[in-house]
Amino acid sequence: MRTSRFFLATLKEAPSDAEVISHQLMVRAGMIKRLAGGIYTWMPLGLRVLRKVERIVREEMDRAGAIELSMPAVQPAELWQESGRWEKYGPELLRCKDRHQRDFVIGPTHEEVITDVVRKDVKSYRQLPLHFYQVQVKFRDEIRPRFGIMRGREFLMKDGYSFHSSFEDLQREYCNMFETYTRIFTRLGLKFRAVAADTGSIGGTGSHEFHVLADSGEDALAYCPDSDFAANVELAEALAPAVARPPAAETLLKVATPGRITCADVAEFLGLPLIRTVKVIAIVLNPEAAEAESPGQLAMILLRGDHNLNEVKAAKHLGEFRFAREDEIIAALGCQPGYLGPVAVGEVAIYVDRSVAVMGDFVCGANEAGYHLTGVNFGRDITAPTLVADFRNVVAGDPSPDGKGCLELCRGVEVGHIFQLRTKYAEALKCSFLDESGQSRIMEMGCYGIGVTRIVGAAIEQGHDQRGIRFPATIAPFEVCIVPMGYAKSETVKAAADALYAELGGAGIDVLLDDRNERPGVMFAEMELIGIPHRVVVGDRGLAEGKLEYKGRGDSESQMLPLAEIGPFLKARLCAAP
Amino acid sequence: MRTSRFFLATLKEAPSDAEVISHQLMVRAGMIKRLAGGIYTWMPLGLRVLRKVERIVREEMDRAGAIELSMPAVQPAELWQESGRWEKYGPELLRCKDRHQRDFVIGPTHEEVITDVVRKDVKSYRQLPLHFYQVQVKFRDEIRPRFGIMRGREFLMKDGYSFHSSFEDLQREYCNMFETYTRIFTRLGLKFRAVAADTGSIGGTGSHEFHVLADSGEDALAYCPDSDFAANVELAEALAPAVARPPAAETLLKVATPGRITCADVAEFLGLPLIRTVKVIAIVLNPEAAEAESPGQLAMILLRGDHNLNEVKAAKHLGEFRFAREDEIIAALGCQPGYLGPVAVGEVAIYVDRSVAVMGDFVCGANEAGYHLTGVNFGRDITAPTLVADFRNVVAGDPSPDGKGCLELCRGVEVGHIFQLRTKYAEALKCSFLDESGQSRIMEMGCYGIGVTRIVGAAIEQGHDQRGIRFPATIAPFEVCIVPMGYAKSETVKAAADALYAELGGAGIDVLLDDRNERPGVMFAEMELIGIPHRVVVGDRGLAEGKLEYKGRGDSESQMLPLAEIGPFLKARLCAAP
Repeated sequence: MRTSRFFLATLKEAPSDAEVISHQLMVRAGMIKRLAGGIYTWMPLGLRVLRKVERIVREEMDRAGAIELSMPAVQPAELWQESGRWEKYGPELLRCKDRHQRDFVIGPTHEEVITDVVRKDVKSYRQLPLHFYQVQVKFRDEIRPRFGIMRGREFLMKDGYSFHSSFEDLQREYCNMFETYTRIFTRLGLKFRAVAADTGSIGGTGSHEFHVLADSGEDALAYCPDSDFAANVELAEALAPAVARPPAAETLLKVATPGRITCADVAEFLGLPLIRTVKVIAIVLNPEAAEAESPGQLAMILLRGDHNLNEVKAAKHLGEFRFAREDEIIAALGCQPGYLGPVAVGEVAIYVDRSVAVMGDFVCGANEAGYHLTGVNFGRDITAPTLVADFRNVVAGDPSPDGKGCLELCRGVEVGHIFQLRTKYAEALKCSFLDESGQSRIMEMGCYGIGVTRIVGAAIEQGHDQRGIRFPATIAPFEVCIVPMGYAKSETVKAAADALYAELGGAGIDVLLDDRNERPGVMFAEMELIGIPHRVVVGDRGLAEGKLEYKGRGDSESQMLPLAEIGPFLKARLCAAP
Repeated sequence: MRTSRFFLATLKEAPSDAEVISHQLMVRAGMIKRLAGGIYTWMPLGLRVLRKVERIVREEMDRAGAIELSMPAVQPAELWQESGRWEKYGPELLRCKDRHQRDFVIGPTHEEVITDVVRKDVKSYRQLPLHFYQVQVKFRDEIRPRFGIMRGREFLMKDGYSFHSSFEDLQREYCNMFETYTRIFTRLGLKFRAVAADTGSIGGTGSHEFHVLADSGEDALAYCPDSDFAANVELAEALAPAVARPPAAETLLKVATPGRITCADVAEFLGLPLIRTVKVIAIVLNPEAAEAESPGQLAMILLRGDHNLNEVKAAKHLGEFRFAREDEIIAALGCQPGYLGPVAVGEVAIYVDRSVAVMGDFVCGANEAGYHLTGVNFGRDITAPTLVADFRNVVAGDPSPDGKGCLELCRGVEVGHIFQLRTKYAEALKCSFLDESGQSRIMEMGCYGIGVTRIVGAAIEQGHDQRGIRFPATIAPFEVCIVPMGYAKSETVKAAADALYAELGGAGIDVLLDDRNERPGVMFAEMELIGIPHRVVVGDRGLAEGKLEYKGRGDSESQMLPLAEIGPFLKARLCAAP
């Protein structure tokens, strides 16, 4: 492609509503243009990237044995009523009436439609398994669309649906898709993690998310660099420390800690490390029943000073609970929050995190304003805990639950999700088949989504610098740009640039020749902003020595290469990509 | 592709609502599946055809210098209000409200959106011309969707929009698109005609339609086989006959024609050819004014007995008119309809078609029930015509208006439309640019549409026989099918079929291997139904002689070909296609 035949429209400034870097850079690069909130036109530059993502997704889905079809965007309400989602979906579902006042939706997903297709066409176990997919426009009426195309309303999605005669076969396809998604994100040149939605091991679980790693990601993840363990921070298990609790060495002391409320403040004041402190979270169990009495029955959760409560885990152990009100705390312990501790609390239930259970000689509140206790020990100073369990979020350095190393934390953007639907939709829509013995049975279903548009944003969140986008070569709008110094002025430069353009294009390289005769600085800045990974400068000075200047998008310095070598050099670099 | 990895679901019977052959065959072949009225899922087989059409359209649009982008399906009402189409478009426009009660439409077309993009990004004549296109899903809420995907509600369209600094440049691009569309439909392997929406010559006119020729087409077309003239029958000019009117030879006679009302009846009764008769159409001019008087002022149009009135042409000559009521005819001529004639009608205006103006000794009604006149002649028996002009539809054999031969009639399916919009949308949406002298001017626009889904239906309307679809190889779901006789039973057959499959696939041929072990008759019928143009049968008997059986979809007989020749043979056939 030549810039004179293309449409580049970069901007100096990002729009004021662009909160995240990918949104800012996509608008500045002229990849997208806003039509309405969460609704964007994909400009020619952006569309090239989107199409490259699509192609890789399609190739790998085809390779995995899935079969492409294309379902309508506009779907009749009847199917949604049949599945029960017409009522359940809420305002994210864009509804409309046709000219005959029949109800329709603009599809946010296609479980109903594909199940309707399959129940009509598939009757026998002999036709199973089947996996259909499409790359198709979806609409979800997000209450607050933002981050450009990362959380837009209209977006492109690859959605696949598989149908099986048994749960075992669904699990086989689920593993097949796990591997396919791994291949897709690897080919896309992205750093990513597959994250179990519950226990963190492949196989028996019902769902995995695929996250592109990026500091700005909405999700906090924990992963083990030495294994394939990865999970949402909220779901990763904090194992019990392998060490035993040391015997008590210090005596119990009450110390004045005036105005020191947080563990960090107390530790600093006492000159102790934070991990020697214990914090108390006062809660009320069974909150609905507690409303009857006033104040409610108090309980406490003990966490190490540097740890944070994981409410999901706590609820799993304790059932429903809420944080205690100040009046309830004072009524039960005679002390305001900030100086609470588990010593001499009578009937108050004490729930202890595994990390606290192995601590000796620790520091905690004295249940008296302005005072803490030091040298606190279980057994000696505190009655037996009601329960020792995992109550906290994992932190970096925690042992990986799979026993294969230590956890690291990172943030991610969810770009893929695979899910064992089992018989949820097939049951509702009566999608059945005849098995080997002629019995009618409901099909097992899986569904597999990739946010095609969101991948483009996630790739930019992961790959950018102060000069702009750094795309992996596999999805860059162009793989190589040729920037001639004086295309209109120097016959030599023009001839060399044209020859190189023809040579690289002939070798199957996706190349952009900047023939606009802009100033070099303008051309360089623009090619860097839009994220082209390889740049070749054609100038009279280099040509006099038979050389061209090459610079990779991430290189700090350029290098001069002989004319004859540039083609093989680029081909080697592009093959070595991502 | 192997059938075992694909999804074929053919039907014995077409659905009862399928009126046209393409709809019947697409459903029977399992290409599409109905979701709601005019809304279809493209099943894997159909999608392959659709994608091949898309690819050819894209390649030629790119080659022509148009730049692809992708606009949203869901569009804010504000733009439609700005262009005035929010009010004008009517119920074909599917409207909806988002969760914030803002109005949106599901785009039936994208003039507003693209003009909005361009007015924001393009400021100078230096950036013009520009031509953006997309291949995108559209929705038109047809009052009576029918003919399957031929007149569906949700459909895929290639829509392109060009922007220019002058009308001359728009005309240049219009010609470029005329040629591009010609290349596209030629590559698609379809017999088609470009039809002027008004005068029938390329260039100065505002609009051309591209029709795929098919007997079942909705539009009647007139074309000249010896030139590129083609027009909608309603719009083709019937030239004045080159002959002069012969002098009167017969005397005027009143003959009894009891019960003979139509020209055909009269001609048969009198033993004369139909072209010797003249029919009279009684009309009332300026009907609104005529409502004041009662009855209205009568006039008559004379047509040759075998010709039909063209109301559009008549209105162009006469202004608004309506057909006369029986009471008006009786009041003016003293005679009921069926026996009308132009002789001795006093003040009644007589409008004469060019073909009638050169007739002598003709037959017409006597203005007396049960009687006609023979030997009627202008000059002698009839006062001078009020106007001689073109009042009729052309018929086969009429001279072509471009003087290059005679017209033929055919029917067509409109699959493309190019249009010089001029400044209609740019004006409404204030899409302007600064010209060379710094003056702000409104852009000139063209728009260019191709009904991508409809092409698939049109190709089937044009290409089918009693066994099913006959696709051109360029858009067939597969180019070649290999049908083994006993794939599971004969090792030799399996080995030969697999080897051929690998060989053809390696040569870039899109080949389907039927490895299902169905009965030969079932496989043959299915491959013919779905329209695969080339079939190779691999059987033990042929293999014993080192031969395979080849049959083209249109061939009446198969032929045996040596194993080594089949590859080159198919490649040659596919290159020679369409």
